[in-house]
Amino acid sequence: MSLLVTGSIGIDSVQTPFGKVEGVLGGSASYFSYAASFFSPVRLVGAVGPDFPKEFLELLKSRDIDIEGLDIRPHSKTFRWGGNYTGDMNEAITTDLQLNVLAETPPTIPESFRDSDFVFLANTSPALQLDLLSQLNGPKMIVADTRDHWITENRDDLLALLPKITGLVLNDFEASILTGLDNMVAAGQSILELGPRFVVVKKGAHGCLLFEGSNICALPAYPTNKVKDPTGAGDCFAGGLMGYLASNELVSFTALRRAIGFATVVASFAIEDFSLARLQQISFDDIRARLEEFRTLSSF
Amino acid sequence: MSLLVTGSIGIDSVQTPFGKVEGVLGGSASYFSYAASFFSPVRLVGAVGPDFPKEFLELLKSRDIDIEGLDIRPHSKTFRWGGNYTGDMNEAITTDLQLNVLAETPPTIPESFRDSDFVFLANTSPALQLDLLSQLNGPKMIVADTRDHWITENRDDLLALLPKITGLVLNDFEASILTGLDNMVAAGQSILELGPRFVVVKKGAHGCLLFEGSNICALPAYPTNKVKDPTGAGDCFAGGLMGYLASNELVSFTALRRAIGFATVVASFAIEDFSLARLQQISFDDIRARLEEFRTLSSF
Repeated sequence: MSLLVTGSIGIDSVQTPFGKVEGVLGGSASYFSYAASFFSPVRLVGAVGPDFPKEFLELLKSRDIDIEGLDIRPHSKTFRWGGNYTGDMNEAITTDLQLNVLAETPPTIPESFRDSDFVFLANTSPALQLDLLSQLNGPKMIVADTRDHWITENRDDLLALLPKITGLVLNDFEASILTGLDNMVAAGQSILELGPRFVVVKKGAHGCLLFEGSNICALPAYPTNKVKDPTGAGDCFAGGLMGYLASNELVSFTALRRAIGFATVVASFAIEDFSLARLQQISFDDIRARLEEFRTLSSF
Repeated sequence: MSLLVTGSIGIDSVQTPFGKVEGVLGGSASYFSYAASFFSPVRLVGAVGPDFPKEFLELLKSRDIDIEGLDIRPHSKTFRWGGNYTGDMNEAITTDLQLNVLAETPPTIPESFRDSDFVFLANTSPALQLDLLSQLNGPKMIVADTRDHWITENRDDLLALLPKITGLVLNDFEASILTGLDNMVAAGQSILELGPRFVVVKKGAHGCLLFEGSNICALPAYPTNKVKDPTGAGDCFAGGLMGYLASNELVSFTALRRAIGFATVVASFAIEDFSLARLQQISFDDIRARLEEFRTLSSF
C-alpha cells in the first residue's frame, strides 16, 4: 500500500555530550521517510532550497523514497536547525532556527500522490495539516503528529483535525497539555474521545502507550545505554509504525501493537548515532533481530 | 523458604487529589509484609509504641505475618507520617513527620528469625542495614532498598553495604544520584559493579528495569488510570518481588523477571486505594489474573 509523508526537510547542527555534527540531514519528513523505507516505499512531500545538498537527495532516492513531491525552490533556502542536548538528553535547547522555506507557502501534494493509502502528517500547524488532507482522495489511514505550540496556540484547528484522522502520535508532555491530565492512561483515553481511532503516547526512554477503543498496549523503550543523539527519534518511531502498517493491509489492534514494537526498535537504532548515520548501517534483518531481542527483554 | 523484613511501621495521614485518610496503617515494613504475604509467610521486624492500634496488629496477624519481631515499646510512640500528593502524584510533600520510635535504638532480630533465607532490608540508614545483616546466619538472599538521603549523606556506609547484598531496589532518581548517570541502563549496569548480584530500578508510572550480569529485563508499569494513593507502592513492589522469590527456591534470571512482573501487579493494586485498603479486597487469584492481563497488555 502507498505511504505518503508531509513534513519538514532540514539541515541540522547538533551537539550532545557524545559529540557534535554540522550540516547533517534533518527534519521530520527525512527521518520518517528513511525509517519507513525499511518496510515500504515512501512518497515524500516537502520543500527545500537550492542549498539542499545533492548527497542528501541521493540518499533519499537510494531508499525507494519517491521525491516527486519535493519542491526545490530556486529562490529560497532550506530550513536549518541547531540544537544542543545536555543531561538526560530528553529535550534539546535550540541554538539556531532558520525557518527559511518553511515560512513560505507550503508545498502542495502532487497529483500522482493524491491516491495514497497511508498518510503521515508530520508536526506542523493543524490548519496546514487540514489543508494537506483536503488535497487527498480519501486515504485509508491518516496519522498526525503535533506539538505543544499547536496545542496551546492553535487548539481549535487541532480539535477540528482530530476527528478527521485515524491516529494521533504525540509525547507525554503534549498529551498532558492537550487533556489537562497527568495520568497518561487517562490522557490517552481522553484523546480518543476527541476523534482519532487510535492514539500513541510516546514517553522517550520510558516507552509508549497505545490506545484504541478500550484496548491498551504498554511497551517499555528498548533498553540501551548507547544514546548518542535523540534528534528525530519520534519521527523514526512514526516511520517504523506507519511503514509497518503500510506493508500490512489489515490494520487490527494486533497489527498496531506489532507496529509500535517495530517503531520502538527503529527509533532505538536511530538514537545510536547522529542524523541517519546508524540507520544507514543497518538492514531490515537487523531490525527484525532486535525486535526478537526486545520481545525477550520485555517478557516476564 | 522463610522471608524476613526489617523496616518502619507507622501511622499515616495522606491526602491526594482523590481523597484523604487519617490514622491509617503505613510504613515500609507494613506495606512489604502485606504484599509479600500473598506469596509466602513473612517475619516482621520493627518497633512501635503502645499507641499502635490493635486492629493493625490483627490485620497483620491475619495474613500469616509473624510479628514476634515486632517490638511494642511501652514508653515510646509509633512513627507518624503525613503526606500530600498533587499533580502527577510522583512524590508526596511531607506535611507531618514524627519519628518517635524510629529515633530510638533500633529493634533487634529475634533468635527465632535469624535463620531466615530471604531478607528484605527496607529503607533506613545503611549502617543500620549492615548491623541488621550482622545479626543473621547467612541468608540465601538479601535485598535492600535505599533513598536519596542515604546516598548523599551516608555514601560510604552504603558502598560498604552493596557488596554484602544480593539485590538493590531503588528508584530512577536514586539510581541517578548514586551513579551520576542519567541513562538508566548505564546507571543500573554501573550499580552492579558496586557489588549486588542484581539491581531493580523502579520508574513509577514508567515501569522498571532489572539488571543481573549482562541480562536486562524492561517492563512497563501496569497501565491504569485508577491511581488514588501511590504511598507504599515501592514497598508493595518489593513485597511482591521477594514474596514470589521466597516461594520459589531457584533464583534464576527467569525467576527474577517473573518476580518483577508479580511485583508490578501487586503495586498496581496497592495504588488503587489508600493504605492497604485495596490489597485487603483481593486474593492471589486476582493477582494471577492481572499478571496474565498485564502480559497481554505488554506483548507485541
